[in-house]
Amino acid sequence: MATQTLATWSTTLTYSTLPPSVIHAAIRSFYNWTGCTVGGSTHPASKIALKALSRFSGPPTSRLLGSDGSVDVDAMHAALLNGIASHVHDYDDTHLDTVIHPTGPVASALLAVVQSLEREVSGEEFITALVVGVEGECKSNKFGTRHITSTTGSIGAALAVSKILNLTPHQTAHAIGLAATQVTGLREMFGSHTKSFHPGRAAQNGLLAAVLAAEDLTSSTTALEAKRGWANVVSNQHRHRLDEQIATLGDGEKGRWEIVRNAFKPFPCGIVVHPVIDGCIQIHDELFREGIDIERVVSVVVQVHPLVVELTGKTAPRDGLEGKFSVYHGGAVGLLFGKATPAQYEDDVVRDLRVVAVREKIQVEVDGGIEADECRIEVRLDNVDGDVKTVHVEHAVGSLERPMTDAQLTEKFLEHCLPVLGRERTEKASQWCWGLEKVVDVRCIKDVL
Amino acid sequence: MATQTLATWSTTLTYSTLPPSVIHAAIRSFYNWTGCTVGGSTHPASKIALKALSRFSGPPTSRLLGSDGSVDVDAMHAALLNGIASHVHDYDDTHLDTVIHPTGPVASALLAVVQSLEREVSGEEFITALVVGVEGECKSNKFGTRHITSTTGSIGAALAVSKILNLTPHQTAHAIGLAATQVTGLREMFGSHTKSFHPGRAAQNGLLAAVLAAEDLTSSTTALEAKRGWANVVSNQHRHRLDEQIATLGDGEKGRWEIVRNAFKPFPCGIVVHPVIDGCIQIHDELFREGIDIERVVSVVVQVHPLVVELTGKTAPRDGLEGKFSVYHGGAVGLLFGKATPAQYEDDVVRDLRVVAVREKIQVEVDGGIEADECRIEVRLDNVDGDVKTVHVEHAVGSLERPMTDAQLTEKFLEHCLPVLGRERTEKASQWCWGLEKVVDVRCIKDVL
Repeated sequence: MATQTLATWSTTLTYSTLPPSVIHAAIRSFYNWTGCTVGGSTHPASKIALKALSRFSGPPTSRLLGSDGSVDVDAMHAALLNGIASHVHDYDDTHLDTVIHPTGPVASALLAVVQSLEREVSGEEFITALVVGVEGECKSNKFGTRHITSTTGSIGAALAVSKILNLTPHQTAHAIGLAATQVTGLREMFGSHTKSFHPGRAAQNGLLAAVLAAEDLTSSTTALEAKRGWANVVSNQHRHRLDEQIATLGDGEKGRWEIVRNAFKPFPCGIVVHPVIDGCIQIHDELFREGIDIERVVSVVVQVHPLVVELTGKTAPRDGLEGKFSVYHGGAVGLLFGKATPAQYEDDVVRDLRVVAVREKIQVEVDGGIEADECRIEVRLDNVDGDVKTVHVEHAVGSLERPMTDAQLTEKFLEHCLPVLGRERTEKASQWCWGLEKVVDVRCIKDVL
Repeated sequence: MATQTLATWSTTLTYSTLPPSVIHAAIRSFYNWTGCTVGGSTHPASKIALKALSRFSGPPTSRLLGSDGSVDVDAMHAALLNGIASHVHDYDDTHLDTVIHPTGPVASALLAVVQSLEREVSGEEFITALVVGVEGECKSNKFGTRHITSTTGSIGAALAVSKILNLTPHQTAHAIGLAATQVTGLREMFGSHTKSFHPGRAAQNGLLAAVLAAEDLTSSTTALEAKRGWANVVSNQHRHRLDEQIATLGDGEKGRWEIVRNAFKPFPCGIVVHPVIDGCIQIHDELFREGIDIERVVSVVVQVHPLVVELTGKTAPRDGLEGKFSVYHGGAVGLLFGKATPAQYEDDVVRDLRVVAVREKIQVEVDGGIEADECRIEVRLDNVDGDVKTVHVEHAVGSLERPMTDAQLTEKFLEHCLPVLGRERTEKASQWCWGLEKVVDVRCIKDVL
């Protein structure tokens, strides 16, 4: 049932029935994905993959965002390479209920295939397909030993591409099957380039699945729920919950849209550090407003949820990657620079003596009464009378309770794109993406990106 | 350990240390694969995949065997499409200890990449890489809910391509990791086109893995054995046995070559039916020699292992695919035509009234004392004195005890290739493949295939 239900729901969904909140959430997801992909395009993993694979590319139809301005490759490679770039800074989106990063596989496949079509694709059509992919992906659950983003991402990408290719429900079910049989993503790969390869390959898996199903290559129309199918292979306890989840698709009685619950990372590191960075930035801004030099800080005491120390307790990180697992580094750059972008996770920043000096002033205390997206910070200055600045972050920026505003997403987009595209192209691209709903032909993305 | 051990063994293996039996087994495996791939190239699944994907192909470097004579595509697509064709008739090879069909993923990737290189690749080098891939693949074990050929095939293909690209042990370990993270193949897909997609995609997964690792994309150097790595994801009980298996690589004290234990299917159907087909062909030949018409057969009693009825008990198959699951059909075509090739599993043969008439004369009796590769057959003629022909197949042709001879493999190759390539090209191709060891440059395969 689950496979067919998903296929039928997907093929019948129309733009006119999407609630405005879903449309806005889809645009935000696409916007954030675009910035992350441009920003990630200069990362070594992205460059290596392009170097290794460009000789296999077919006729160039589809743009690689960012990298060297205007490189085109075939849709299959664009799906893979944009997918890698979108995830490579661990800075993309998170559907918090499932911990899937949903837009990477779906948007990478969708934008790639759209540019290879010989017809106009409106922004409305694009948004509908994006929603289909993200919803299909997020109606799945957690799997212990796999990278869930790519495991479910192949299916999401297949759904989105099937939608844009106007496949029948029957063909769409086969596309789901072809995607499901490509179960990419071991968690062992975390910490290596291959982690970002996962959503890229998932995008490509899904695109391949839909393109084959479009020509009536057969798979199974019960791929997700069958005894020897996807759900039972990725988790033994999963089959029943899958049916339950699929029943909540869309606007029905039990319906719930998942894309409106998609969150965006304000900082390129593990989500548990976000409250501390958020609070430290608030204190940085306060000190800045009052003209107080950071040198005058004597001590910083941070109270956090137990997981923060467990996952990110590195007191003396040695490079950018280790910095991502250090609450001390996150707090230090927040206090010192008032921001934590990929630039603050470069190796030389992690080793910068000014950063090290602030890092060493930070004490972290675990408090079982504090929530995962909460923290309390107390900063003591060198005044004789012991001036103290405190902040209580109830919900970190980027949480569902305090989502990134459109303005904050724009700022993040500029951070990603300015160094790669320059101001003029960045601003044009930003406007174009925010206006996705009104775009007459998404293939024109090449005029701006 | 397993990952690094495999990588190191693979990179240090040289042709001069291969026992002659291993070299001969590799040539037989390649020869059988070539015939199956040419024969499978005209199957709908192969044609659909080519139609769907040709527009994504990069500069054409690598030959699609069979299909329309001389179509070239890029190496990635050649790996996929030849891999599909090689498996699509369920007629390829079987490593009986693991039930892996090992050559498909490995040879498909290897032959594809070799033709894309800008240097000569000798037959000796090719054979060494093929052996590396097949050994790496077969040192794995059984996994209940997956298609093991593709699950292990990605790793075998990555090893073979890493070898031919001269990757370092470190790069090869990363290639294994990149291949391992692409766990393709659900058993739910059996009975659909996607089953043959699996070894094709595995070939492509492995090729992609090696090509990325060659440019130093990082994965994990403990991908197979790590806690969240491949073996634990594909089977919880697997990790320990993996180490044991890897320790038996090559010529060492505990060493055992797997490729010499690779068997070749004489008939394009489930292996449990093979003893019955074998025996019925023997009786066909005897009747033919004695000039006795098949019409004179009154009854056929076949005694078989219990699995035969359990897996292939369809008394009245309706089409070719169902015919593969009917011991009655297998026996009937053996008796009637003296052979069982893909032609005898066409829909119209399964529905042919002469075939149906013989099928209906066959009675199958289960006998717990009979082995899986054994059967007894008794054929009664319409003489007044009740002439009886009997045969006892102790080990079916194609088993390890009675392997296909080189002559039988040649006959199978001709069956595959003649209808596709014609006699002249078929014979040239056959000679070329049997002479693989002496080939100066494998890229010249395009001159013959």
